[in-house]
Amino acid sequence: MASQADAEAVAQLLHVFNREFDEPTPGAAVLAARIRLLIDDGDTAILLSGEEPDGVAVLRFRRAIWSEGLECYLAELYVVPRRRGQGVGRALMERAMCYARERGADSMDIGVDEPDTVARALYESLGFSNRSGDGALMFVYERELDAAG
Amino acid sequence: MASQADAEAVAQLLHVFNREFDEPTPGAAVLAARIRLLIDDGDTAILLSGEEPDGVAVLRFRRAIWSEGLECYLAELYVVPRRRGQGVGRALMERAMCYARERGADSMDIGVDEPDTVARALYESLGFSNRSGDGALMFVYERELDAAG
Repeated sequence: MASQADAEAVAQLLHVFNREFDEPTPGAAVLAARIRLLIDDGDTAILLSGEEPDGVAVLRFRRAIWSEGLECYLAELYVVPRRRGQGVGRALMERAMCYARERGADSMDIGVDEPDTVARALYESLGFSNRSGDGALMFVYERELDAAG
Repeated sequence: MASQADAEAVAQLLHVFNREFDEPTPGAAVLAARIRLLIDDGDTAILLSGEEPDGVAVLRFRRAIWSEGLECYLAELYVVPRRRGQGVGRALMERAMCYARERGADSMDIGVDEPDTVARALYESLGFSNRSGDGALMFVYERELDAAG
């Protein structure tokens, strides 16, 4: 479990994550400051794996509406390339689910892009589904809220 | 904008919502207590429309990871059957987006089931998309975290 002392290591992993997938990143220094805020806020838990570390899972918690417990959102899951295919992601996920349950979450959700077949296979093997109770596919809809829009 | 005084009206609408779609609901009284907690927590904003009221939007906010602002999640949007097709949902959404922007959110996201074509058409007409920047469909993956699992 990452503490304030791990903020830079977490930030470095997240920065490398988005660089690998050509997603925007504000840089590791800005991310480290934000990670410290998130840990302070108390709604975020971050799991690290390995000594270096070589994998990270970021969990967000909030009170559920329809049940008494919390809902947990897996915001990020990343394993560095050289450690892939060795069960690091699965171990992080199993630890994350265990932690979330202990903390009082009664559900976990994740947003996943259709082409991310490795991640989807991992989540499906862990009991996650992108279909609701009646079999309907569940989509994420999103938009930026720019000042003009 | 709903205050503590509106918790019962909000709860009644959400209860009717889930009854209409055969989703579980703990009942309006339990929901009202939870709505009061959510409003107290400060991460939830609830918009009501009409005198009765006849429509509700529930927004959740939290600090974003990749940007300086907040991320806003539209947790619930409901309009009572007799008021549908009259622009109530669209008006709630426009107000919700405006409020979220004012509060400092730079993105809004929504989970929507594939067969909910009316809701999806509304969101798409308001600039939401279920495809990421590179055109990939974005899925919600979810599982319960029961004690045994």
